[in-house]
Amino acid sequence: MRIKVINPNTTWSMTRTIEAAARASVSSDVEIEAVSPTMGPVSIESHADEALAAVGVMDEVRKGEADGCDGYVLACFGDPGLHAARELASGPVIGIAEGAFHAASFLGRSFAIVTTLGRTLGRARDLVNEYGFTRACVAYRACEVPVLGLDEDPESAYAALRVECERTIADASPDAIVLGCAGMAGMCARLQSELGLPVIDGVAAATSLVEAMVRIGAKTSKREEFAAPPAKEVVGLLSPFTRD
Amino acid sequence: MRIKVINPNTTWSMTRTIEAAARASVSSDVEIEAVSPTMGPVSIESHADEALAAVGVMDEVRKGEADGCDGYVLACFGDPGLHAARELASGPVIGIAEGAFHAASFLGRSFAIVTTLGRTLGRARDLVNEYGFTRACVAYRACEVPVLGLDEDPESAYAALRVECERTIADASPDAIVLGCAGMAGMCARLQSELGLPVIDGVAAATSLVEAMVRIGAKTSKREEFAAPPAKEVVGLLSPFTRD
Amino acid sequence: MRIKVINPNTTWSMTRTIEAAARASVSSDVEIEAVSPTMGPVSIESHADEALAAVGVMDEVRKGEADGCDGYVLACFGDPGLHAARELASGPVIGIAEGAFHAASFLGRSFAIVTTLGRTLGRARDLVNEYGFTRACVAYRACEVPVLGLDEDPESAYAALRVECERTIADASPDAIVLGCAGMAGMCARLQSELGLPVIDGVAAATSLVEAMVRIGAKTSKREEFAAPPAKEVVGLLSPFTRD
Amino acid sequence: MRIKVINPNTTWSMTRTIEAAARASVSSDVEIEAVSPTMGPVSIESHADEALAAVGVMDEVRKGEADGCDGYVLACFGDPGLHAARELASGPVIGIAEGAFHAASFLGRSFAIVTTLGRTLGRARDLVNEYGFTRACVAYRACEVPVLGLDEDPESAYAALRVECERTIADASPDAIVLGCAGMAGMCARLQSELGLPVIDGVAAATSLVEAMVRIGAKTSKREEFAAPPAKEVVGLLSPFTRD
Amino acid sequence: MRIKVINPNTTWSMTRTIEAAARASVSSDVEIEAVSPTMGPVSIESHADEALAAVGVMDEVRKGEADGCDGYVLACFGDPGLHAARELASGPVIGIAEGAFHAASFLGRSFAIVTTLGRTLGRARDLVNEYGFTRACVAYRACEVPVLGLDEDPESAYAALRVECERTIADASPDAIVLGCAGMAGMCARLQSELGLPVIDGVAAATSLVEAMVRIGAKTSKREEFAAPPAKEVVGLLSPFTRD
Amino acid sequence: MRIKVINPNTTWSMTRTIEAAARASVSSDVEIEAVSPTMGPVSIESHADEALAAVGVMDEVRKGEADGCDGYVLACFGDPGLHAARELASGPVIGIAEGAFHAASFLGRSFAIVTTLGRTLGRARDLVNEYGFTRACVAYRACEVPVLGLDEDPESAYAALRVECERTIADASPDAIVLGCAGMAGMCARLQSELGLPVIDGVAAATSLVEAMVRIGAKTSKREEFAAPPAKEVVGLLSPFTRD
Repeated sequence: MRIKVINPNTTWSMTRTIEAAARASVSSDVEIEAVSPTMGPVSIESHADEALAAVGVMDEVRKGEADGCDGYVLACFGDPGLHAARELASGPVIGIAEGAFHAASFLGRSFAIVTTLGRTLGRARDLVNEYGFTRACVAYRACEVPVLGLDEDPESAYAALRVECERTIADASPDAIVLGCAGMAGMCARLQSELGLPVIDGVAAATSLVEAMVRIGAKTSKREEFAAPPAKEVVGLLSPFTRD
Repeated sequence: MRIKVINPNTTWSMTRTIEAAARASVSSDVEIEAVSPTMGPVSIESHADEALAAVGVMDEVRKGEADGCDGYVLACFGDPGLHAARELASGPVIGIAEGAFHAASFLGRSFAIVTTLGRTLGRARDLVNEYGFTRACVAYRACEVPVLGLDEDPESAYAALRVECERTIADASPDAIVLGCAGMAGMCARLQSELGLPVIDGVAAATSLVEAMVRIGAKTSKREEFAAPPAKEVVGLLSPFTRD
Repeated sequence: MRIKVINPNTTWSMTRTIEAAARASVSSDVEIEAVSPTMGPVSIESHADEALAAVGVMDEVRKGEADGCDGYVLACFGDPGLHAARELASGPVIGIAEGAFHAASFLGRSFAIVTTLGRTLGRARDLVNEYGFTRACVAYRACEVPVLGLDEDPESAYAALRVECERTIADASPDAIVLGCAGMAGMCARLQSELGLPVIDGVAAATSLVEAMVRIGAKTSKREEFAAPPAKEVVGLLSPFTRD
Repeated sequence: MRIKVINPNTTWSMTRTIEAAARASVSSDVEIEAVSPTMGPVSIESHADEALAAVGVMDEVRKGEADGCDGYVLACFGDPGLHAARELASGPVIGIAEGAFHAASFLGRSFAIVTTLGRTLGRARDLVNEYGFTRACVAYRACEVPVLGLDEDPESAYAALRVECERTIADASPDAIVLGCAGMAGMCARLQSELGLPVIDGVAAATSLVEAMVRIGAKTSKREEFAAPPAKEVVGLLSPFTRD
Repeated sequence: MRIKVINPNTTWSMTRTIEAAARASVSSDVEIEAVSPTMGPVSIESHADEALAAVGVMDEVRKGEADGCDGYVLACFGDPGLHAARELASGPVIGIAEGAFHAASFLGRSFAIVTTLGRTLGRARDLVNEYGFTRACVAYRACEVPVLGLDEDPESAYAALRVECERTIADASPDAIVLGCAGMAGMCARLQSELGLPVIDGVAAATSLVEAMVRIGAKTSKREEFAAPPAKEVVGLLSPFTRD
Repeated sequence: MRIKVINPNTTWSMTRTIEAAARASVSSDVEIEAVSPTMGPVSIESHADEALAAVGVMDEVRKGEADGCDGYVLACFGDPGLHAARELASGPVIGIAEGAFHAASFLGRSFAIVTTLGRTLGRARDLVNEYGFTRACVAYRACEVPVLGLDEDPESAYAALRVECERTIADASPDAIVLGCAGMAGMCARLQSELGLPVIDGVAAATSLVEAMVRIGAKTSKREEFAAPPAKEVVGLLSPFTRD
């Protein structure tokens, strides 16, 4: 089984962190291919960044299909390009926000999201509502560390994240914490141990869930909405995305 | 007052239809600028197309800001790139699905969407739910005419659309019909007259609503989520979208 | 185009404030007629007041139809008599709570209502839920200034309102503030400027939205619920409301 | 214990039917006072009628308070004036739509409303949603017999009602039927017996529920929203409703 | 009329308290039979306890049917075994959480639950959502007194409960308080008097509501879900529950 | 890794079918232990059966904890005893309805449930709502084959199930079918192949999801609701369930 883990931003050091988290989350017979697209923003902290990242995600899914990948993880908490990826892929595709919410719901009634920048919480809320977790998600919080700041000064970032988690637990009493950025994958185990409640990293959650889906032979439904998109001419800068 | 109406696909004949509908929907002192982006799909009939179109939409909003536009209409029923456009614009931005739903809700309790291809109804449903019209939208229907088919054979397209509207009225008894494609703008008046209930074209609805918002001085909130996105390097094919 | 703006209470000094706000919100070719009914409470601060006010609203819409008005604004935040007005009117009818909520939703994800008396917030909540803004409205607050107190001591009233807005922004972090009383129309611009986020006055919002709907030829659906009400004998004090 | 049952329309023959149903629904020590207001429409079949009826309802509650009534039933399926009545009453007030929905929910998971005219179903839907029965109410249907037609030709009316109930059971498979008009009270037992599933008459339901609330000493909360409304001058035709 | 009030736990001193509350809530012609099952936990403070208690509830309903009981109250705030009881009973069955929520909704817009242990609030939330009171219930609170602690040291328990109620009123401003345990029945009147807002004891509420339902001839719908369960062999420890 | 798969009914032939489906859904290093409880109904087709089955489920989880099991699957579509099992288990516990709904949501927007007896659909609906899939589940259908009928005459049962699935696809157009009984596990692959859309067997789905959760170290949250239940005396027939 081969799972392609796509980091929708173009910062490969973060892709390496993600790859490690993904590898640690699957059975020994699962091959993990972790990549960043050849195009797109170096980090994703706005709706504009999400929109740009979705294009690179589509490109990587297209290549993954040619390579025979069995399933895909979209390793950015905004799940950019998820619906388009489902059109392009035959196997299952799971975003890390999606995967984290589902995993959290198996462990308790409620979870809180703790993310990087507050400005991204609108997107998180959209995903929570779209995926059916409106009632389960009891708090939306941010530690106000930028995405690339997680790598640049991990100890300060960890401290800020932990403080925000502690405040969130005191205020909203969730059964679990969901980490709101793929770049936090490396901090999950320590945080869970120090906080004493389940802490979910979406990379681990989504990758293990894709493995589960592939193992039971579950594939994206191709009945209508997620059937392969029709042939289409695309012009200008994006003309390489023309579909014959 | 200057309103920029962006047709997110790159078929200029459709842009001209949209421009006419927009012009007919505003006061005499409003200037309408209707454009297609320099890049993107020739029609939008899938999530993949939506994702590609969002990039061109951002490009046009960026240029519109430089030109001093007061507000924006996104003239594709999937409202592609709406959130990103709100980050980039200072004035109001309204998508045609959004505008049509709001307009319909002023005229009655319920509406039905009748669109081109059934595969796009998942996106319509997402927008209905996100914008708060879950209860109001009582039917999602498609006439299975492709977007460009509306222009190529308008009489056949009109006939198929009308039949589907009649079926929808019989089955779901909506107070109003919302047309699910900007390319149907030219068919709205005839349809309303023949069906005997309000029929909403999103181009007219959204354009008149943008005028209303500009007139009362209402601008996109810049508190957090829709503040200008942070500076960001973008690499590869999309590097022209780097924000300094 | 002629829009009738009905102040459902019978305090004409407030009607004049409302008229000014309405006039400032429309194109130069729109005629505004602002009135109070000949009957009803001098201010509306309870469900009992709402019920009494609805009768006067109906009377004014009936007269407006005879006069050929193109649309109506109901300028009390409880939108009293809105459904009855839609039965009686052929053109669009928009209440100021309704108009304000829709306008706010074009500018951001969330809004907070700040009104006069806390006892009216139940009605506000009903309207938010009925119109589909349950998720968007993140706070319901009151400054506990009575409606007529807004006119009697505007500076104190403004100060109390501003303090409550500031508290609301700190507590609930809305993208916009919706003012919960037509009598606050004159305070909107100053408040928006001092608070630094969109502040919506429902009179301006609803009036500009009615203009938008009239301009695109949108009329109240007459399919069933909002068809003209059947002939009916009305007895006793209310016998002038008999419909032949 | 004394319960005042207010028929919000002014047709006393219907008030007598309602009185009989109410009497049959309470313990032997409960006194029933059934009245129509001195003002208002002879039947309630539109939002305009509802608005007019609410005024008479308030008048009767005011008089009931002076007379020492312990609780109130509003015997029209639109529950006109319910919130205002709660402000004016110290004891419990229950509308017959409200009472019927609650009763139905004790007997099964789902119910269907079968009413007189289809144009009133928008109001029924509003009440279902406001009271929390969105999920429970699985069908909204009308037999298209006018309210006063129930009395004028009871056998034809019964036949039309029964046919519509049978269709509704076949289509929507509800656990119970809720009758959508107080004028159907006399048809409930026969219908239940012939249809073989619970059929709820709101007059019986609401009256027995008011008795239950009075018996346990439950009174309308006077904390804020339903506290007695503030003193208020009312002008013109409605000046008798001035509150000192 | 004979109503069987089942205390799902096996502590008969609590059953006696419940019996007194039930007797005080019905007309003089209603016979109350209050029992504990012959099996089950001595108090119910976890999902495991709920599951065990449901078995004893079924046993008592079965016996009640043989004895000709007209209706049933399940006097534990988790409403354990309610759906099974509805299958087994011909008359109405109401749980005390269910009854309390319905009663509270007749008295105001909102209520807060104040219960014994915080760990039971997940169950309370499930019931609120299932019964349709999601919007009405504005706070879930616990005084952290164990169920049997209510009897062992009633004065301390009362003090803790009152403090938590006061905090809840200050924080969430409900129109009414719902007591979250049958063992609090004896504290209801004093609490209501001292707090100055409606306080609902579910035992009183549910018993009076069952009387109301029996009085109007309302029985559990036997259409499908709540029809008598099919014959079934049950093995092992639970073999006495075999249904022939 | 050791996963205990509990068939909540006491028919061991069905347990063997379930075991086979579970084994086929996990990695080679996962040990599956499939059991039926020593007590309980031979099949689960009513709320009464669910309540009885929950007791046996608790017993098996208790034993599983003593044996060091890493996670649990509850292999009955009503997920009986799920919350109690979460209190008793340290590792993850997933019911097959729960697992199936989550899996279906990874593959498309919508699913339909096709189950055995229509009387169990109320329970299915409760679970759909509790778990957050209200919007995703677009049809609830039954083939009216009893649970044990699936084993007794598999070909007839398959034919009835397939016909009902085909009708459901035609009527509701779901992206996927969820099978509503563990006893249908052996029919899943054939059905998926013949119907041409994803068909989800909850046993496979839940077992693979438990493996995923165990692999990433995710355990049931023990913060409050699902902490180990307090010590408790249990009397009578159920006294073996006393917790010290």
